[in-house]
Amino acid sequence: MSTQYILELIGTYFFAISGALAVSNVENDLFGASFTGFITAIGGGTLRDLILDSHPLVWIADSMVMYAIFAGILTAIIFYKYVIKLRKTLLLFDTMGIALFTVLGVEKALQFGVGHEVAVIMGIFSAVMGGVIRDTLSNITPVIFKKEIYASACMVGAIMYLLLNQFHVERQVNLLASASVIAAIRLLAIRFNLYLPSLGSWK
Amino acid sequence: MSTQYILELIGTYFFAISGALAVSNVENDLFGASFTGFITAIGGGTLRDLILDSHPLVWIADSMVMYAIFAGILTAIIFYKYVIKLRKTLLLFDTMGIALFTVLGVEKALQFGVGHEVAVIMGIFSAVMGGVIRDTLSNITPVIFKKEIYASACMVGAIMYLLLNQFHVERQVNLLASASVIAAIRLLAIRFNLYLPSLGSWK
Amino acid sequence: MSTQYILELIGTYFFAISGALAVSNVENDLFGASFTGFITAIGGGTLRDLILDSHPLVWIADSMVMYAIFAGILTAIIFYKYVIKLRKTLLLFDTMGIALFTVLGVEKALQFGVGHEVAVIMGIFSAVMGGVIRDTLSNITPVIFKKEIYASACMVGAIMYLLLNQFHVERQVNLLASASVIAAIRLLAIRFNLYLPSLGSWK
Repeated sequence: MSTQYILELIGTYFFAISGALAVSNVENDLFGASFTGFITAIGGGTLRDLILDSHPLVWIADSMVMYAIFAGILTAIIFYKYVIKLRKTLLLFDTMGIALFTVLGVEKALQFGVGHEVAVIMGIFSAVMGGVIRDTLSNITPVIFKKEIYASACMVGAIMYLLLNQFHVERQVNLLASASVIAAIRLLAIRFNLYLPSLGSWK
Repeated sequence: MSTQYILELIGTYFFAISGALAVSNVENDLFGASFTGFITAIGGGTLRDLILDSHPLVWIADSMVMYAIFAGILTAIIFYKYVIKLRKTLLLFDTMGIALFTVLGVEKALQFGVGHEVAVIMGIFSAVMGGVIRDTLSNITPVIFKKEIYASACMVGAIMYLLLNQFHVERQVNLLASASVIAAIRLLAIRFNLYLPSLGSWK
Repeated sequence: MSTQYILELIGTYFFAISGALAVSNVENDLFGASFTGFITAIGGGTLRDLILDSHPLVWIADSMVMYAIFAGILTAIIFYKYVIKLRKTLLLFDTMGIALFTVLGVEKALQFGVGHEVAVIMGIFSAVMGGVIRDTLSNITPVIFKKEIYASACMVGAIMYLLLNQFHVERQVNLLASASVIAAIRLLAIRFNLYLPSLGSWK
């Protein structure tokens, strides 16, 4: 198994945890929590693959993905009281997850011969749509709409991946560099409370 | 027409009624009610078929499905004041509907050669996603997240179908037995007010 | 470029503006606004094409669609304070957009050999689902459920297109006539405050 594959499974595992711990689940039943964990973990990649017409879907073709999701859900359920205290650590893993999924999403889209703009959007979708679906089902404002540098960090990293790719930077280096930029932007933004202006903020 | 086919049409008919009667529709217009009825009836199967890449979709290939949906919507509109009093009866039909759609969903997924875990999830999706979409559009907490034995009953029946299938139980018997188990669990849970614990319920 | 193609791009442009200006975006960040603009513009057509299994999706195959969306988003961001005052004008363009997308959606569905009922629904989906997704993400009641003649106008136009098509009316004439009927119904309904009754309105 390649490092990248293992990282993907780990990312999926953490996405499932974050989904199972979604706000609304605290007062809902275990099955609801598991369901949200599942949807969050597969949502972004599934939407990307449906749009690209890439079948079979990753989680259908590869049981390991499914097991990573189940492991994440079980972790959230069994170690609930510990995991909930580790929110900061989880945020770190979530950030690494979206960073990784963005660049892998861009790469996959390129393999399907789509244009550069579409590849950037597929990268962003892969990373954030699971969370958007999770929040929409929970009836809370999707994280992507909050005043937080989140999907915009993914966009920067996706564009960077394309640029480095254009300059024939070696794939592994590019994946690592672009994903690191996404993670760095997001973590710095959280640390220094940076955010983008809103639509109505200048008049 | 086989018994199973007729049962599917009846299940679709009742899904359309339940969608058209969705809470928020009481104060919205007739078209909104029809639209929700339609989405509820096709939602689960459509998502399943998109995920499995099964085309054409059932309701596109077979006009009878569409007519069953239209009949359900018209029933809800014309007999609104009677139907609304029959909520208990409707619940019974809804339960039979999800039971049937679960096992048929599992069966369809197996025909596409997917793994057992995926088949179980496809069964659950077929049965509950129409309702999840209905509730999300209505801005209410999806039924699946309520403290109610609902999708978990589908999961038990889906696993049972796979087990009996493994032991070469005759298909019709298996469909009937597994669907009955789903219906029985759900109805008993409602009758005796049983539910699963929530994520934060043990510390 | 045909007139129809240019009209489609203009319709897409206005859909993107309306999405970027969605209620909730006023207090959210620029990226959220762009994201909603994008989803609103592609949502209906993407859902239609996934359902019809028509690949590659329009906005993936044709960069011009993407540029029209970006232009719409930029217009909303840069000229925010002017655009927001032009809501009435925007409503006019939105109305022409849904009228056009309805008839083109019906036409596309027919090319895939689907039944008449399915074609009508595909027309409605093309026109309104982008807005439904936009409103659902924003946690507001989807426009389609409001007491407003909106999707029902699309339905009338879609059926009219099919009828005229049956009578071999020339395509361009039919497109124009059916789209005009949709726009006229919607604008008259707004002007004279007409709406459909609700489900619980007669007892």
